[in-house]
Amino acid sequence: MASEYVYFFSKENTDGKKELKNILGGKGANLAEMSSLGLPIPPGFTITTEVCDIFYKNNKSYPDNIKKEVLENLEKLEKLMGKKLGDDKDPLLVSVRSGAAVSMPGMMDTVLNLGLNDKSVEGLAQLSDSRRFAFDSYRRFIQMFGNVVIGIDHGKFEMILDKEKESKGISSDLDLKTEDLKQIVIKYKELVRKETGQDFPQDPIEQLWGSINAVFGSWHNPRANKYRELNDIVGLIGTAVNIQSMVFGNLGETSGTGVAFSRNPSNGENEYYGEYLMNAQGEDVVAGIRTPFPVSELEKDNPGIYKQLIDFKDILEDHYKDMQDMEFTIQNGELYLLQTRNGKRTGLAAIKIAVDMVEEGHLTKKEAIMRVSPNQLDQLLHPSIDPAENYTSIAKGLPASPGAAIGKIVFTAAKAEEMSKKGEKVILVRKETSPEDIGGMDAAEGILTSTGGMTSHAAVVARGMGKCCVAGCGELVIKGDNTCEISGKSFSEFDMITLNGTTGEVIEGELKLTTQEISGDFEKFMEWVDEERPINVRTNADTPKDSEIAIKFGAEGIGLTRTEHMFFEGDRINSVREMILADDKAGRVKALKKLLPMQMEDFTGIFKVMNGFPVTIRLLDPPLHEFLPQSDKDLKELAEIIKVDFKKLKEKTESLHEFNPMLGHRGCRLAITYPEIAEMQAEAIIRSALNVKKDGIKVLPEIMIPLTGTEKEFVFLKEVILKKSEEIFAETGESIEFKIGTMIEIPRACLVADKIAEQADFFSFGTNDLTQMAFGYSRDDAGVFLPEYVEAGILPKDPFQVLDQEGVGQLMKIGIDKGRSVKPELKIGICGEHGGEPSSVEFCFNAGMNYVSCSPFRVPIARLALAQAKIRKDRS
Amino acid sequence: MASEYVYFFSKENTDGKKELKNILGGKGANLAEMSSLGLPIPPGFTITTEVCDIFYKNNKSYPDNIKKEVLENLEKLEKLMGKKLGDDKDPLLVSVRSGAAVSMPGMMDTVLNLGLNDKSVEGLAQLSDSRRFAFDSYRRFIQMFGNVVIGIDHGKFEMILDKEKESKGISSDLDLKTEDLKQIVIKYKELVRKETGQDFPQDPIEQLWGSINAVFGSWHNPRANKYRELNDIVGLIGTAVNIQSMVFGNLGETSGTGVAFSRNPSNGENEYYGEYLMNAQGEDVVAGIRTPFPVSELEKDNPGIYKQLIDFKDILEDHYKDMQDMEFTIQNGELYLLQTRNGKRTGLAAIKIAVDMVEEGHLTKKEAIMRVSPNQLDQLLHPSIDPAENYTSIAKGLPASPGAAIGKIVFTAAKAEEMSKKGEKVILVRKETSPEDIGGMDAAEGILTSTGGMTSHAAVVARGMGKCCVAGCGELVIKGDNTCEISGKSFSEFDMITLNGTTGEVIEGELKLTTQEISGDFEKFMEWVDEERPINVRTNADTPKDSEIAIKFGAEGIGLTRTEHMFFEGDRINSVREMILADDKAGRVKALKKLLPMQMEDFTGIFKVMNGFPVTIRLLDPPLHEFLPQSDKDLKELAEIIKVDFKKLKEKTESLHEFNPMLGHRGCRLAITYPEIAEMQAEAIIRSALNVKKDGIKVLPEIMIPLTGTEKEFVFLKEVILKKSEEIFAETGESIEFKIGTMIEIPRACLVADKIAEQADFFSFGTNDLTQMAFGYSRDDAGVFLPEYVEAGILPKDPFQVLDQEGVGQLMKIGIDKGRSVKPELKIGICGEHGGEPSSVEFCFNAGMNYVSCSPFRVPIARLALAQAKIRKDRS
Repeated sequence: MASEYVYFFSKENTDGKKELKNILGGKGANLAEMSSLGLPIPPGFTITTEVCDIFYKNNKSYPDNIKKEVLENLEKLEKLMGKKLGDDKDPLLVSVRSGAAVSMPGMMDTVLNLGLNDKSVEGLAQLSDSRRFAFDSYRRFIQMFGNVVIGIDHGKFEMILDKEKESKGISSDLDLKTEDLKQIVIKYKELVRKETGQDFPQDPIEQLWGSINAVFGSWHNPRANKYRELNDIVGLIGTAVNIQSMVFGNLGETSGTGVAFSRNPSNGENEYYGEYLMNAQGEDVVAGIRTPFPVSELEKDNPGIYKQLIDFKDILEDHYKDMQDMEFTIQNGELYLLQTRNGKRTGLAAIKIAVDMVEEGHLTKKEAIMRVSPNQLDQLLHPSIDPAENYTSIAKGLPASPGAAIGKIVFTAAKAEEMSKKGEKVILVRKETSPEDIGGMDAAEGILTSTGGMTSHAAVVARGMGKCCVAGCGELVIKGDNTCEISGKSFSEFDMITLNGTTGEVIEGELKLTTQEISGDFEKFMEWVDEERPINVRTNADTPKDSEIAIKFGAEGIGLTRTEHMFFEGDRINSVREMILADDKAGRVKALKKLLPMQMEDFTGIFKVMNGFPVTIRLLDPPLHEFLPQSDKDLKELAEIIKVDFKKLKEKTESLHEFNPMLGHRGCRLAITYPEIAEMQAEAIIRSALNVKKDGIKVLPEIMIPLTGTEKEFVFLKEVILKKSEEIFAETGESIEFKIGTMIEIPRACLVADKIAEQADFFSFGTNDLTQMAFGYSRDDAGVFLPEYVEAGILPKDPFQVLDQEGVGQLMKIGIDKGRSVKPELKIGICGEHGGEPSSVEFCFNAGMNYVSCSPFRVPIARLALAQAKIRKDRS
Repeated sequence: MASEYVYFFSKENTDGKKELKNILGGKGANLAEMSSLGLPIPPGFTITTEVCDIFYKNNKSYPDNIKKEVLENLEKLEKLMGKKLGDDKDPLLVSVRSGAAVSMPGMMDTVLNLGLNDKSVEGLAQLSDSRRFAFDSYRRFIQMFGNVVIGIDHGKFEMILDKEKESKGISSDLDLKTEDLKQIVIKYKELVRKETGQDFPQDPIEQLWGSINAVFGSWHNPRANKYRELNDIVGLIGTAVNIQSMVFGNLGETSGTGVAFSRNPSNGENEYYGEYLMNAQGEDVVAGIRTPFPVSELEKDNPGIYKQLIDFKDILEDHYKDMQDMEFTIQNGELYLLQTRNGKRTGLAAIKIAVDMVEEGHLTKKEAIMRVSPNQLDQLLHPSIDPAENYTSIAKGLPASPGAAIGKIVFTAAKAEEMSKKGEKVILVRKETSPEDIGGMDAAEGILTSTGGMTSHAAVVARGMGKCCVAGCGELVIKGDNTCEISGKSFSEFDMITLNGTTGEVIEGELKLTTQEISGDFEKFMEWVDEERPINVRTNADTPKDSEIAIKFGAEGIGLTRTEHMFFEGDRINSVREMILADDKAGRVKALKKLLPMQMEDFTGIFKVMNGFPVTIRLLDPPLHEFLPQSDKDLKELAEIIKVDFKKLKEKTESLHEFNPMLGHRGCRLAITYPEIAEMQAEAIIRSALNVKKDGIKVLPEIMIPLTGTEKEFVFLKEVILKKSEEIFAETGESIEFKIGTMIEIPRACLVADKIAEQADFFSFGTNDLTQMAFGYSRDDAGVFLPEYVEAGILPKDPFQVLDQEGVGQLMKIGIDKGRSVKPELKIGICGEHGGEPSSVEFCFNAGMNYVSCSPFRVPIARLALAQAKIRKDRS
């Protein structure tokens, strides 16, 4: 007969089950579930989360019926255990723990050893045959209760403890004798009296209610509120309270405690894996004062217990159908399980476990797909810091591109290339990178910048290269003299540092890195993923090399080729500059002629790799001044190369300067002012497509116009492209089908998407720019306030990392709806950085897009995220 | 019995009327109307605009019924005139003219003297008693027909004419003798035969159809298409064709021609006003070869004709209820009217005529209000170039702030202030201005910049000051050495120039300026305007002085006070800089304490002027680096003043540099990072409000948070402000009501306006930033491509001048709808530059706003635009 608000659990009699997580909390539901399975759980009961809600609504008190239910369940527990709470002779001791439906580790309060008082401590001493243990337990209880329930500063108890140790000349708590602990208990009680004017409560029932109040009260402590805000935990009505009989692993050599995983969390091997310590409490294992033993030792030392553990983990894994992370305690030779939960694991392990569990018949393929987090795949694809390394970072920036890298500091791209040629590993350290630095970025192991956010040039390019990058590291100050300061410490050129691009950490010196092998399991898993995946995944790639990598990772075409990235390679930049600096159209056309064969070479290479897949090529996007050198020295060099007067060159360069280049003369605006650029690019695309077609390659070019804000911009350039293509078809007598579409990255484009859709063959959402403009944030400057915004909870996430569905997403939906309202079959994709971020990818699928496109190394992440999104949608 | 597609007009028999403008075109409708009034109009007929549509749909030909109608009407005309088209003895001659429902001056084709051929020219010679006249008319007809109908290049005819003059040693057409003209006719006909292989058509009916075809055909000539695109003329089906019997003013001393206005178009006085020439054609009056006489002379020379003219203008004015601009011809002593239309007039005249016509009983007040264009008011409020001045501009920029100014060129704000103190008038010439230049801008007569658009700093500040500004003048290049080039010509410091801010023209040297007196008529007119005006007009003002001007112009409160503009005055800037450069909060708070009394002084002054009106004060908006000096020299000076190490100061300044300041750390983002700034500003507002309240002033402060993009930003700062105000209320024991609202200027804010509205007391649309971000245009950089966009018809208008209702307006509607969905009474206004632009203001009213706010000098414009919007809405 279950109560309404209190759920009992024991081997014999359990009211709850795991499906009741909402009202029992995660911990309470799991305790109930394990009890029902007949596992040895110290019995107890759970007060539901509804009571937490009632507690707050009822002026922090309880209606009589609830009080009655709690006491009835306590009686039931006492009866089952054959003990009485706080009894003088044979005391029942309990723990009082919080436990909400969503795990909030360390956020709320816990009281252990409840039931001890001046008398029952003697009973415990008798029973346990250890006075030291009993008084140490009492001491801990008073400290915990005094702090958590009464609200006395924790430091005041610590001070008493420290003084006692000092007076005895000892440094470890473990060296305290029984008499010392007794003294401490006395002083603790004095402290309580002094602070509250009342004695420490001796009545166990009073202790119990005080602790329950404290746990419910901690639901709304500032720390817990903040945690929920930061982690977007909403819709919970409160925490449950778990009251459970205590077991002790520190009662002697036949007692002990340990943690174990049902499979190896590092590599996923199906082997029992964990550590234990005899005569110890949980915190001893964690604190590292004594070195725990691998659980395999237990097989020799205590085969009976070991066999039990193996049986239990099989039961639990079979039941939860996932790898389990378990805590256990052995009390006087008897095994108890205290907790089980799905175990954390590396990406490698996640894949292996998922695949194995399908093959073992534990999971369906769909279930297995849901068991691997898309972000875990990152670990598989990049080198990472060896888990055995124990390090402290000296600064933290944004985790701009995952993986790890070690190398010598260099401050210029040229130096990076020079050193790399000598076989040296280098880290390129810059305020921010620019397209001119591409060569140096490619040569470097990793990139560290002091400004710029998750979609800064450094971040975007590094991700495209699959190269580690820490961006916007505010603690980095670059000095002019080949030195820099990181968090106040000076570093010179060639000093060694390590970057962790997955966390954003910067570490002094050299750490060991590991690279994980991509196993056959990965391929099998991704095959299953692709069976569920509902829409295409393309890649953002600018070179045949990147395209090849992406194909290996499963890309089904290119969603974005940034033609301007090709403009920096080798001598091309000089032709580009000649074009920019030309006085008139004739001069530009002359320079563009030189670029034409180079662009054709690029496109030809990409088309060959992408045989049979669509290739979306974006026309020139960045403002022209990005291609010009900035310093007088470089300008003088350029003046000589292209034979232009330096002063004139400088004037021209200055005239191209923009106050807000992100909102300036770029994208289609450039091509409208200088249609000859679009003509050259269209010509390069069409001609190289015709060439590879002759070789039997299936080529599907999609020409993409950037930064469209009005229908007429699109029409203007569409006509330029069509005219050029017709000329070429007429000249060659050959033809090829191609599409002309547009980026949707200007807020206004979303609002007039119906008009643009009448003209365009496809849309591709450029969510980097769309985020910049919808928020009014410059991706290069927002680093100053965005981290603070996220920390203060003003924004849930950096919107350049995770798509802002509320605002930017609303604009996208307007764009999609309007576009499809005039052209129901309009092909729509995304090629912003969000195209490789799992929650954003899910949004894109649900919004009705036809594909997502992301950097090559994120392709597997997007594939998995899409499969999961589909499965979630089908289930809902 | 009217035809279906052809409308006859004559004194006796007229089918059309002015209400049929859509099918008769403006000219045709007016000819019909004047004919019905019994005025002496040369009779004729109009082929409707529907025929133009049919012509294009029918493969450029006509169904038989239409052909028949045209010929029937021609017969009717011949019968009425007693002449036959192209008759040998007594030829009827006609003009063939286009005329659409909307006037498109000079865009389409015209043929005069139709009906002449080798025989009828002799008849005309007999009739007119002038062979020279007859052959000159024939020569002109062949030339016009040859060009317009046959398509022979105009220059080929001119070449023949020039050769003939050359061979006779004469330079003016007037000196050509009859025999010369006969020779020319022969050569013209030879040219036609050579070009077409056919003789010049002698058949008058063939001439007629050819001309009608040509006029309809010119509807879609590129020039006309472009004109309609540029002027947003849509929805017309075509042009009408007017065929009218010719009258000649050059038949001798009893013939003549003239133009006249029914009232003085310069000052509006009710006096007949115009010019005439005897023995002349219309083009002789225009060409300026002979000097015409004032029409008053005609009273002496030909009192009969003069009396007729006075009678006719009274009839027309009475009929059209507006001042008329009329063309007349006297043929052999008989008066004909050829055209009447509403006359163009100055702003001064527009007001006087509107007021007079109400008092004369011609117009209702509402009608009078519709007769004055809001932009005409600008002329009344600013000095302008004397209409008598005949000048050529050397360059053209954007008409950034209306009015005219003369002065000596200076290149720095400091020099402007220095010269101004000496009593010199100067023009400040800069690449672009920054807030540091405010003093110099105030001292200068006008401002000229080479970059920056209609909402650049220079433009916004100049409009606020009511000072002439030409911005974004691409032909201006500023050299480093106190010189500049304008359109390639070099100018030195202190060279004199004149600016026309109303047109954007830059003129070398000094022109005469005039300032018009604001008369009692203006006040009376604006009273009527206010009777109709549906919503409030506030002003954007940063100083008590500006506020006073605005009140005089009828402002009903302040919609935007930019607190940062106060930061530059006098010594304040050093305290501001100290605050920015402080290492920590304590340092900032110290510097802010110095600013507090200064800000209080500003607010106190404004509150006093605005007694009883709401005052919206925006918290600090621009990025902090805008307040710091840029050059090393200035930085060194500052280092000494605020006693900070120069190197450190330079480092700090550099660390504040932003790539895209418009999208950077500004607006509420600043106040969230440094809440102490918002606290100081809130304190200054609240304390000065409490102070003036004690003096019996009614003070209604509205604190406005800039650049809100998320609800939480708003809540964060609202709490800061409320906490500060409660502290002050508690401290002083006094309190005051105030509102806290927000700018809506970030696209995302429109999309989440429902959430923001739950928290905010009011919205004010900042359409400058909203336009920047919705389009992705930097107002400081878009000058490079925006003029080209407008010229190419990609955008109908510069969206920084005229609100883009299609895109930006859509965002605003989303914002208004969402905001009012949770708070139906939410107060909503606009404080962007569009708040003073007539079509934008009309949009704001129709979108449901409660007020518009604009710079003081635009307040009357907004008032009139609103009254007109209301009247239009009521009528529709």
